[in-house]
Amino acid sequence: MLPFEPLHTDGKARTGRMTTPHGTIDTPAFVPVGTAGTVKGVTPDQIRRSGVQMVLANTYHLMLRPGADVVAELGGLHALMGWSGPILTDSGGFQVFSLAHLRQIDDEKVVFQSHVDGATVVLTPERAVKIQRRLGADVIMQLDECPPGDAARNQVAVAVDRSIAWARRCKEVWREGDWEKQALFGIQQGGAFEDLRARSARALVELDLPGYAVGGLSVGEGPAEMARVLGAIDSQFPPDRPRYLMGVGEPRDILAAVARGIDLFDCVLPTRNARNTQVFTWTGRLRLRNARWARDPDPIDARCRCYTCRNFSRGALRHLFLAGEMLAPTLATIHNLHFFAEFMKAIRRAVTEGELDRKAAQWLAGMYGGHAADTSGSA
Amino acid sequence: MLPFEPLHTDGKARTGRMTTPHGTIDTPAFVPVGTAGTVKGVTPDQIRRSGVQMVLANTYHLMLRPGADVVAELGGLHALMGWSGPILTDSGGFQVFSLAHLRQIDDEKVVFQSHVDGATVVLTPERAVKIQRRLGADVIMQLDECPPGDAARNQVAVAVDRSIAWARRCKEVWREGDWEKQALFGIQQGGAFEDLRARSARALVELDLPGYAVGGLSVGEGPAEMARVLGAIDSQFPPDRPRYLMGVGEPRDILAAVARGIDLFDCVLPTRNARNTQVFTWTGRLRLRNARWARDPDPIDARCRCYTCRNFSRGALRHLFLAGEMLAPTLATIHNLHFFAEFMKAIRRAVTEGELDRKAAQWLAGMYGGHAADTSGSA
Repeated sequence: MLPFEPLHTDGKARTGRMTTPHGTIDTPAFVPVGTAGTVKGVTPDQIRRSGVQMVLANTYHLMLRPGADVVAELGGLHALMGWSGPILTDSGGFQVFSLAHLRQIDDEKVVFQSHVDGATVVLTPERAVKIQRRLGADVIMQLDECPPGDAARNQVAVAVDRSIAWARRCKEVWREGDWEKQALFGIQQGGAFEDLRARSARALVELDLPGYAVGGLSVGEGPAEMARVLGAIDSQFPPDRPRYLMGVGEPRDILAAVARGIDLFDCVLPTRNARNTQVFTWTGRLRLRNARWARDPDPIDARCRCYTCRNFSRGALRHLFLAGEMLAPTLATIHNLHFFAEFMKAIRRAVTEGELDRKAAQWLAGMYGGHAADTSGSA
Repeated sequence: MLPFEPLHTDGKARTGRMTTPHGTIDTPAFVPVGTAGTVKGVTPDQIRRSGVQMVLANTYHLMLRPGADVVAELGGLHALMGWSGPILTDSGGFQVFSLAHLRQIDDEKVVFQSHVDGATVVLTPERAVKIQRRLGADVIMQLDECPPGDAARNQVAVAVDRSIAWARRCKEVWREGDWEKQALFGIQQGGAFEDLRARSARALVELDLPGYAVGGLSVGEGPAEMARVLGAIDSQFPPDRPRYLMGVGEPRDILAAVARGIDLFDCVLPTRNARNTQVFTWTGRLRLRNARWARDPDPIDARCRCYTCRNFSRGALRHLFLAGEMLAPTLATIHNLHFFAEFMKAIRRAVTEGELDRKAAQWLAGMYGGHAADTSGSA
């Protein structure tokens, strides 16, 4: 079982400490995405120096290339990535439903075509766990069915029941192995339907898993719906298990989710946006290709202590982006990872001090120019 | 004047120490190329950790984008690059003759079309120095004319005389400014014609410049011709000035040139080859995309202490290259920079110990599979 210790609470928000075989994670935490075994554009050393404690890798990508057996032969995912800290892998399910050409889904399995070479691949709950065991991450996810954001109630209900059944099958295979080395998380589904979410949560909690994820959000339902769904989770899940909101990284959404009891986040936002020249600051985002930075000798953020801000001006970064140099996305990624790590650290401090509401309102005003924040913790 | 202190000699080979306003360089040294203000794919921090002491940037690229004035406004080249160590800039001449669409050349100037936006640009010796002053490198180069490798004797003779006249004009402008902050190097031309090389050297030495470069080699003349030209330089140039062989980086050529008295080298070889998946070791080169590395858990070189070899297997590097991940060229570049820095360190040690010939033969046998080395120092 994954030791998780809640430390402080502020309303439904909480800080905690999650312990894995590869180190601890202070929560609430943001987990950057390292799809194919690398957080794009940065070395593990740069990730660590940015204050990141845990990274995510995508089972779907790794099972297709280089393959779970190859990863295992190379010493497992920690060795492949050159990252000695905690790693989380997803089950592959989300990418099957979003990236691959899905051929068939039934209670037994999903069948899809690889986006790499077109090969037909079968994924079952059992296989998802076995592959993740070969990869060797510290936190692994059950296979779930993630219906589209506009799915009808009966389709979502089928996905909920199927995901519950799959969670049970995943747990069985997980417990047959060296289960203490990896923590299996269940995934709640149910779209925006309160009763389906509740049914999903009840069944998962009955399975007594090391952690619980909220899936099927940030798929176009809007912030009000997301807040409504998240408003119930504090009562749906036990306090001594980490809660992970999958695929969410917008700072506004992070604040709303932390206020409702979420502990973990992952998203491509800071890294993808960095490669697209967008960097985050406490006073809003900058587009580094913008002509206004051409002769600006100041860093992205004069108060930021990241490697990029200590060594490069906005003008230099703009030049590197315009020249198409690899260093530009690397430096922007370093900054954004550092910003998100600092943001989560500030959130933890605010929760510890019982100041989350007040601080969140300040941060949102700075980042979004005064748009109202909803961190009240209620639906 | 740039302080340069020769330390040990071994035949014509020598070690030395070059002091600049931004730090010292132990010679013989290899200077990686940072064309547009960045050594492609790596941060200045990674460059420094690889053991590199000095980097080169290309005046031609920087004058076109972002422009010398912009670089100056951003705090100069050291600030632009985020590199606080010594920097060398070339004059722009070589790229004008190799990259740009050359429109006109006479004793006064070269006129060319920018490869960035097609604009017509005029470069004179005076302007080359003034631009390099705006950039602010520690070592700057005269504008020279670099004829093609197959140029006839009379064309080479014109280039020699023109380059001598341009060296004189460069020196005048250089001495009018804050000249002690930057060391101006003259560039010897003359192709493979011994008398023209000698004439070029005599005229440059008469100008009493802080350092001398050998230009117009590694343009297809072959190793024997290169060795013959370099065989004369120890007698052509004073011992208390650094000698820089431009554009040469092949380890075999470096050894042959060091044995003839060269102190400085620059080349895109380690960085460009890294991006093309080729990494250097003492026992030859590896192509990291090769299928034989797919399941190889060993590093590129088990004895190498670079970040890449301490953290990544050949199998992991192959995977990252096949997946098209930016991290792959970054890690290969870190390794190659480290290898070249270690190679130069080993050369310096061998010279100090009077063992260059013996060591060079060993290294060449390892790197090239027993091909005979020519480090005898004679033409």
